[in-house]
Amino acid sequence: MDDVLILTTGGTIDKLYFDALSTYQIGDSVVDRLLQTARVKLPYRISELMRKDSLELTDADRAAIVAAAAAAPERRIVITHGTDTMTETARALAEVSGKTIVLVGALAPARFAESDATFNLGMAFAVAQVAVPGVWIAMNGRVFDGTKVRKDRTVNAFVAV
Amino acid sequence: MDDVLILTTGGTIDKLYFDALSTYQIGDSVVDRLLQTARVKLPYRISELMRKDSLELTDADRAAIVAAAAAAPERRIVITHGTDTMTETARALAEVSGKTIVLVGALAPARFAESDATFNLGMAFAVAQVAVPGVWIAMNGRVFDGTKVRKDRTVNAFVAV
Amino acid sequence: MDDVLILTTGGTIDKLYFDALSTYQIGDSVVDRLLQTARVKLPYRISELMRKDSLELTDADRAAIVAAAAAAPERRIVITHGTDTMTETARALAEVSGKTIVLVGALAPARFAESDATFNLGMAFAVAQVAVPGVWIAMNGRVFDGTKVRKDRTVNAFVAV
Amino acid sequence: MDDVLILTTGGTIDKLYFDALSTYQIGDSVVDRLLQTARVKLPYRISELMRKDSLELTDADRAAIVAAAAAAPERRIVITHGTDTMTETARALAEVSGKTIVLVGALAPARFAESDATFNLGMAFAVAQVAVPGVWIAMNGRVFDGTKVRKDRTVNAFVAV
Repeated sequence: MDDVLILTTGGTIDKLYFDALSTYQIGDSVVDRLLQTARVKLPYRISELMRKDSLELTDADRAAIVAAAAAAPERRIVITHGTDTMTETARALAEVSGKTIVLVGALAPARFAESDATFNLGMAFAVAQVAVPGVWIAMNGRVFDGTKVRKDRTVNAFVAV
Repeated sequence: MDDVLILTTGGTIDKLYFDALSTYQIGDSVVDRLLQTARVKLPYRISELMRKDSLELTDADRAAIVAAAAAAPERRIVITHGTDTMTETARALAEVSGKTIVLVGALAPARFAESDATFNLGMAFAVAQVAVPGVWIAMNGRVFDGTKVRKDRTVNAFVAV
Repeated sequence: MDDVLILTTGGTIDKLYFDALSTYQIGDSVVDRLLQTARVKLPYRISELMRKDSLELTDADRAAIVAAAAAAPERRIVITHGTDTMTETARALAEVSGKTIVLVGALAPARFAESDATFNLGMAFAVAQVAVPGVWIAMNGRVFDGTKVRKDRTVNAFVAV
Repeated sequence: MDDVLILTTGGTIDKLYFDALSTYQIGDSVVDRLLQTARVKLPYRISELMRKDSLELTDADRAAIVAAAAAAPERRIVITHGTDTMTETARALAEVSGKTIVLVGALAPARFAESDATFNLGMAFAVAQVAVPGVWIAMNGRVFDGTKVRKDRTVNAFVAV
């Protein structure tokens, strides 16, 4: 089936700001609103798996992400994810066969006026439709093989390896 | 060469609003600002070809677009374009071989808070990297074969044919 | 009563962009959404009087605006209005006594990412609370006596006279 | 002199988000950009006093704010400030005579798409022009006497006392 499944797991893309705490927390996913603003007509389904900073993801969380991707009827899957351990989840997803899976996140919360979230989500949506089955990461204007990329924290960007 | 060339031709994506005239005009292209906001690290080059509503594009304009795409050293080309005659330009570009060309625009100006411009540009940037050579259109959350799509003005959306 | 009444009449502040027509039209008022985003706790009531470009306002329209302001139980009134004939409406409103009336609009639609609408509305909301009864115009970062101001179309700004 | 002086001291209004730290910091003040977007024509001067969360302001910091307000040639003064101790600074400023001083901040960073910063700044700019000398707070759509208001953290809003 040609529909796109979006699994949300948390990460900076969905962060809110709570003044009362002077801190950030992960809120309701903004993905649906972003897709509506983009006038997306391709059918999609959104499923929230968890709301975690990716540094807090456990092995059990990763197993749940892999299981959700494997069990889904959709063959095109976009996963929103924190950037710090995105490549680790990509490697775990490599065992899912026959599906085009794209991991995507943001370096600034989507609720910011100047965020990379919408652009990145657009990339991911396109890759899910166009790329051959496998695991991909769409960040920093690039489409990476999900098993050949790392986040370089010194420059806060993803680079091919 | 893996860099992306962006040719801008005008269209709604770059429209400004001038109160003095209570009308809109096509302004400086917003593409560079959108790519910077998206923290794009993939090298790109932007070239402004014209600033026209796509209903005003002449055969000579289309020939100029095709010539620019054919002559460019880049093999990955994104063209921002008004939506009304985007499919006509796509057909003209079909003669360019060996390049992945993606036409993209917006149904609401990028300067609007709620525009499809950024998402669409993200799609186009990804398709330029991932798709096989040919002409593609990235609109409404879909990646279309540029020769098999039309704009349905009754629903203000692109549909496959 | 200390509540604020907001009368909407149209103007650039509420303009939409319709791609199908490649033109602008006046849409649902954005005022309520702007006030919610601003976390406004002061009670207010919004009443839509008309949706017109201010160049199209007739004497009857102005009489209706004056009548609505005069009849309202609220003593603090904000009127959103196109800028081209805002000063003309201000003069018509001068006959209303005992109320603080503030005319406000925008040079760029509120739906634009970079609009003066929200700032201006904030000014108007404050003036309605703080200023003595009379007619005021809040534009370009200034609070003008509504009977001593004109719009200078050459610089697209309001200036005191 | 009728110009407006804006003293910036930090607070949520100027908060940035740094992904590398998954935390926020106070960045360059957004005030100038907000005033330019608002097409403000009234002359103003911006002076950065400090960049602090208002919970971190010391007595010496408050003394510096009071001294800057007292020494300024401008009689209309807007002070951007964190909300948690805004009322405390208001009380300290009560000793400055002959000037209209308005404290303002935001419950969400101005860099968020949905922030109260711009509306609040518009209110403050208007109050500085219209209100009699004294200390005022412009928050939550209300103009408060700066000595008769408190922040109610349970509802994250300012209320008159």
